[in-house]
Amino acid sequence: MNKKIIGIDLGGTSIKMAITSHQGELLQKWTIPTNVLDNGTHIVPDIIESIKHHLDLYQLTPSDFEGIGMGSPGQVDFEKGTVVGAYNLGWTQEQLLKEQFEAAFGLPFVVDNDANVAALGEQWVGAGEDAKDVVFITLGTGVGGGIIANGQLLHGAKGSAGEIGHMQVSDKRLACSCGMNGCLETVASATGIVNLARVLSETYAGDSLLKQLIDDGIATAKDVFDIAKQGDYFANQVVDECVHYLGKACSHIGNLLNPDYIIIGGGVSAAGDFLLDKVQSVFMENVLPSVQQSTTIKLATLGNDAGVLGAAGLIANR
Amino acid sequence: MNKKIIGIDLGGTSIKMAITSHQGELLQKWTIPTNVLDNGTHIVPDIIESIKHHLDLYQLTPSDFEGIGMGSPGQVDFEKGTVVGAYNLGWTQEQLLKEQFEAAFGLPFVVDNDANVAALGEQWVGAGEDAKDVVFITLGTGVGGGIIANGQLLHGAKGSAGEIGHMQVSDKRLACSCGMNGCLETVASATGIVNLARVLSETYAGDSLLKQLIDDGIATAKDVFDIAKQGDYFANQVVDECVHYLGKACSHIGNLLNPDYIIIGGGVSAAGDFLLDKVQSVFMENVLPSVQQSTTIKLATLGNDAGVLGAAGLIANR
Repeated sequence: MNKKIIGIDLGGTSIKMAITSHQGELLQKWTIPTNVLDNGTHIVPDIIESIKHHLDLYQLTPSDFEGIGMGSPGQVDFEKGTVVGAYNLGWTQEQLLKEQFEAAFGLPFVVDNDANVAALGEQWVGAGEDAKDVVFITLGTGVGGGIIANGQLLHGAKGSAGEIGHMQVSDKRLACSCGMNGCLETVASATGIVNLARVLSETYAGDSLLKQLIDDGIATAKDVFDIAKQGDYFANQVVDECVHYLGKACSHIGNLLNPDYIIIGGGVSAAGDFLLDKVQSVFMENVLPSVQQSTTIKLATLGNDAGVLGAAGLIANR
Repeated sequence: MNKKIIGIDLGGTSIKMAITSHQGELLQKWTIPTNVLDNGTHIVPDIIESIKHHLDLYQLTPSDFEGIGMGSPGQVDFEKGTVVGAYNLGWTQEQLLKEQFEAAFGLPFVVDNDANVAALGEQWVGAGEDAKDVVFITLGTGVGGGIIANGQLLHGAKGSAGEIGHMQVSDKRLACSCGMNGCLETVASATGIVNLARVLSETYAGDSLLKQLIDDGIATAKDVFDIAKQGDYFANQVVDECVHYLGKACSHIGNLLNPDYIIIGGGVSAAGDFLLDKVQSVFMENVLPSVQQSTTIKLATLGNDAGVLGAAGLIANR
């Protein structure tokens, strides 16, 4: 199979596109802005036009490709190839993506939700090294995730498999946007870490640079980790509590699925080995010996390319 | 495919065998005792002889069958078809099961661990109604489990997928046989429930039939549920705490995998709807709305036949 693949990573502000090989090498990539006006009706035509333009540019035709894959926000029906309820795109009505893309290019089209697609990217050509059992956790504005088991993306009964951010692991019981409380997202997303710091600062009396930033209302999750790395006692308290819950969630995943890798990505993972080592330590205390020996926690390696590569992976791994 | 299947459920005291249709109907079943003498060297020859005897009895030959499946204790290498470390069978050395059975019958042979096999039985022809995503939890002497996702049994990186009994969900931090503490098994297995009652009884001052039995050292898990059903306050305290942890474990499974069904089996599940309703209630409070709507907790329906039927399922679902 020497044909190429087109991968599309559809986001609320920009749409990333790429041409990859069947093996997942990134050959070309480009980005266009997302036009959410008029209920997002320009989005699909914009993407189709941009792909056609780039095929011309690289002197390629649809026959050079084996298919088009896409990661999308909202509720994706990956069997029908439709998306509904992607409010940041203006898509309140069901979007018949598969129908539109197959009509435009005559190529197989597969769409899945963006968290699943990023997970597939990392599993396929990122930190997952194409292992057959990989769980991806993304710590961003929220906490998302995706699960690859036996080499396949899991969707579950209603497409909610991989909702790692809503595992109820925190005793702090902070309210979550989902309506529940105590979700991992409330203490391990970028927003959640700052909230956690705010709650803990109420009972912390000592000096702390982080506490000053919290009191001034200008602290970010990056500040929490940067200041903790400098040895600030309070910041380390916040990090330790965040990591305790994240490590517990990873241990539940480990004992339940025994994946080859649990990969941590998203903005918060920029804290690097400082974060990873602490999570690893909680994980090791809470999983069976056989899981300690065979499940490794790693940092994501693809960054923003996980989306387009995973989208291409939907086609390569059909 | 009108050929039949032989299913074998290998246990420490007895070996159950069955002939099933390709669709999982139980056509014949019988049981022989497990002879663990001489390092379990009689076990495989005994099974082979018993199968040959029954084929003669029913006037069948190997050509009437599509294969032989087996559930076994110990560490199973399902790809190689071997078992090691099944101490209750006397099997300390690696057993080349696939080789021996294929030589005896000339039929495909598949072996998997007993918890996975029971899970497959319940998923295939039990409470799971052949849904593609099912998690099975068995509450017996210990707590075991198995996961079917996208219609396939999950094994994980080192065969430890489905170790639901060792999810760390209990704040009580009771010591577990695995060396950790706080495992679900320490509060939701038959032994664990009695231990939990013993710990809670230390701080319970009122009258209670269960507390009397605990103090006399003769309480069983069945007593805990039977007495709770009669309205005993202390027994209900024990049940509520056990169910809280079991419900939490189910909610982690729900948010992570969103299976069609979570099936609860094993001796403790004889407590029936009294147990199920309480677990369901904790579950609903701790999972996303989409999971509430699409994941159902049910009681197992196959009882002791789950093993032989699941073993046959290893062949039917290859």
